Amino acid sequence: MPVSQVVKYANTNHSRFVEELAEFVRFPTVGSQPNHAKDMGQCAIWLTDQLQKIGLHRAEMIQTDGHPIVYAESRQRYGCPTVLIYGHYDVQPAEPLQAWKSPPFQPVVRNSYLYGRGASDDKGQLFTHIKALECYLQTTGELPLNIKCLFEGEEEIGSPHLNTFLTDYTWDLGADVAVISDMPIIAPDRPAITYALRGAISLELQVEGPQRELHSGIYGGAIHNPLQVLCEIIGRLHDPYGRIAIPGFYDHVQTWDSSELEYMAQIGPTEQEILRNARVLHGWGEPNFSSYERTTIRPSLSVNGIVGGYQGDGPKAVIPGLAVAKLNFRLVPNQDPLEIERLLRQYIANITPRTVRSRIQTQFTASPIVLERPHPAMQAASHAYFQGFGTMPVFLRCGGTIPVVNMLHNILGIPTVLMGFALPDDQMHAPNEKFYLPNFFNGIKTSISFLSEVARRMRPVQKSAGTTAGLGVLP
Amino acid sequence: MPVSQVVKYANTNHSRFVEELAEFVRFPTVGSQPNHAKDMGQCAIWLTDQLQKIGLHRAEMIQTDGHPIVYAESRQRYGCPTVLIYGHYDVQPAEPLQAWKSPPFQPVVRNSYLYGRGASDDKGQLFTHIKALECYLQTTGELPLNIKCLFEGEEEIGSPHLNTFLTDYTWDLGADVAVISDMPIIAPDRPAITYALRGAISLELQVEGPQRELHSGIYGGAIHNPLQVLCEIIGRLHDPYGRIAIPGFYDHVQTWDSSELEYMAQIGPTEQEILRNARVLHGWGEPNFSSYERTTIRPSLSVNGIVGGYQGDGPKAVIPGLAVAKLNFRLVPNQDPLEIERLLRQYIANITPRTVRSRIQTQFTASPIVLERPHPAMQAASHAYFQGFGTMPVFLRCGGTIPVVNMLHNILGIPTVLMGFALPDDQMHAPNEKFYLPNFFNGIKTSISFLSEVARRMRPVQKSAGTTAGLGVLP
Repeated sequence: MPVSQVVKYANTNHSRFVEELAEFVRFPTVGSQPNHAKDMGQCAIWLTDQLQKIGLHRAEMIQTDGHPIVYAESRQRYGCPTVLIYGHYDVQPAEPLQAWKSPPFQPVVRNSYLYGRGASDDKGQLFTHIKALECYLQTTGELPLNIKCLFEGEEEIGSPHLNTFLTDYTWDLGADVAVISDMPIIAPDRPAITYALRGAISLELQVEGPQRELHSGIYGGAIHNPLQVLCEIIGRLHDPYGRIAIPGFYDHVQTWDSSELEYMAQIGPTEQEILRNARVLHGWGEPNFSSYERTTIRPSLSVNGIVGGYQGDGPKAVIPGLAVAKLNFRLVPNQDPLEIERLLRQYIANITPRTVRSRIQTQFTASPIVLERPHPAMQAASHAYFQGFGTMPVFLRCGGTIPVVNMLHNILGIPTVLMGFALPDDQMHAPNEKFYLPNFFNGIKTSISFLSEVARRMRPVQKSAGTTAGLGVLP
Repeated sequence: MPVSQVVKYANTNHSRFVEELAEFVRFPTVGSQPNHAKDMGQCAIWLTDQLQKIGLHRAEMIQTDGHPIVYAESRQRYGCPTVLIYGHYDVQPAEPLQAWKSPPFQPVVRNSYLYGRGASDDKGQLFTHIKALECYLQTTGELPLNIKCLFEGEEEIGSPHLNTFLTDYTWDLGADVAVISDMPIIAPDRPAITYALRGAISLELQVEGPQRELHSGIYGGAIHNPLQVLCEIIGRLHDPYGRIAIPGFYDHVQTWDSSELEYMAQIGPTEQEILRNARVLHGWGEPNFSSYERTTIRPSLSVNGIVGGYQGDGPKAVIPGLAVAKLNFRLVPNQDPLEIERLLRQYIANITPRTVRSRIQTQFTASPIVLERPHPAMQAASHAYFQGFGTMPVFLRCGGTIPVVNMLHNILGIPTVLMGFALPDDQMHAPNEKFYLPNFFNGIKTSISFLSEVARRMRPVQKSAGTTAGLGVLP
């Protein structure tokens, strides 16, 4: 049966799909707020039920030390590639409630938008794939490839239990490629695929001085001030031109050929767009790079916060005992987070005066990720967007980091296609969050086409046992 | 009648003096806690009554926009110098209460100490002068000179209404010298007089970047981070040797001749004492100066606190919109706070990159104060300590600033003798505050002798009208 039949099913079921999405959004699944723990469980049950109802072979709810994970898979088709669909059913807090035009958990449609907390991030985008699967299963009785769905309830709090879950079930979760729809495209007529993410290191740099706070009148001038030293150390992390001054830091940074740089210049945001979005007048950074290049193919180092000394109103004349800075590196191919961390530790140790003690505590690391544009899954996604939205997508690099993509890469060894259906003004994380329904419908067509194209273009490389038996954690 | 008779009166009234001091300490005069407002008023009435009872010509309680000031003066003796005695009847909060061995406002005597909040700071030391005045007035019927008493109730909260009071009543408060007893001597057998205080400038340095917090993944490397810039600016306030790097900063710093430096080296604390008190292993600061010199005759600049970006636990990847540092200069003769502030503003403006905006907000300034050791009031104090404690005092410089001394100097134009009767372990501001009663008795003798010596050594330079009529603010 051709894909056109599958799409026809989608087109004739629009209003029911929107009603079901509204049901999904109605669960107040604020995972960070303990009073919503019960809602999390009820939503997970509803979602599991959905996956069963649309015809997936097996769907189950799996308890973690946090909120449950909903997992489902299709009946195994040997010789076909496997796509892992990742999404999350938890949402950001809805506060401030008075800023909402309609209550956050009573979804309504206005002007082709479905309003409600989580409508876009990530329930609407996740649901797009579920409905695409339904269209296939209800028209053809089968999928053109193997599907595994992994929907977690802790994305908005940093996925604290996902790593363990992926590690525990690596064997069962084997797939050829993952797809995540949890980001905006540029505009309804300008779809986009993110093909590169920067890596990251988040750490705390502590400088310890006197054992207790001292009076800056009595001791000022004779005792080294750890807050001053912290500033002096941070002052030596960049050179006067905006380059990072840690010896060896740029040694392995990949340079790109002129065709890639020309593509970026042609497709990426302009200087004006980046500065306008940041609402600043003047750019800054490494000489001889554009702002788009500085935030994507060049590494960066940001001071995220400093805590030290007196923080209240007015003056207080103290020399603090301790000063702490939160630092965040963004890394690019082929920088290794462990190597960069080592270079930093070495450099800080070298420039710390003996009058104080410095210490570094690493809190988070992630490697840079690139999924080359010619990869068959990327070509499948590109073709799918053309089918769904009527126009070819552009390929963008992103300066950010998506930890889930790193986990899927590091633990399952699979690449991820970042296929967004949201819009930049969907108010993700803000009051009056909304999901553009034409994107929902085009997204379902895109997902249908993506599955079909992956089946056509990719060969299965993973071999896994037990994939038809579920994860086997429920009695 | 000789001074020995006056001292004899003191010696025969020791136990009554201690009982009266205990009465004074019993008032819970925590000026910073609104629930003690009534106690403040009752204590002020009691103190006014004391000053009347001992035989001062006039005593009154004067309302301010805060807690009342208690003012008293002796009957005018023409041709005699006038001493202004400053003290404060408010005390620090007593919390944590469970750390007290006896309740803070139920004074008791144990091992020659009177225990209670305010026993030393400043009720006991203030009372020492009141009892000295009583000894004179009750034995000779008169004082050897003119006395004005100015006891405020807001010292522990920064004397917010004293400046206005001194300005409003400048004419009435005219005096030749002020005396303040609100500091420790070195030990019971080692009295000390502080003859120099550093000046101060407290200010906030703000660096403003983007209008709102930005994501350090998305924008890191292309938007200048105000917290990074703040650190870089602070990193340029000192040179690598520990000297302050603001051009012109040292231009007017007074240098001292070898006799002064030798006196300081001989009398002042050693390197080991200063480092041990600060509990640090290594000193720091301007080359070729001792720690005592660095904290007294050399200026300093301390970073008291930094507020900027994310302050909570764990990482948060932001570029903050604003970064603020609290800075504190200590100044020495002949640095002018206004000139130093101008130099700083100029320098900061010069080194602020155009990608951010910097701003300086001055919160407090005070000039350095020196009362030369040969000054007749200092010689009178020196002689008086010998009479009271049986040993000559040493003269010390202090790196701190006492704003009241600046106010008395700037508004009334008079020098201040800093004549402490407390001990370093009196637990001022801490639980189990105490006052060493032998110091109380020796202090009364010292005060008696001081008044006699000032009368002998100083000639009145102030001319004031209306000094016998009180401040005239009560009906």
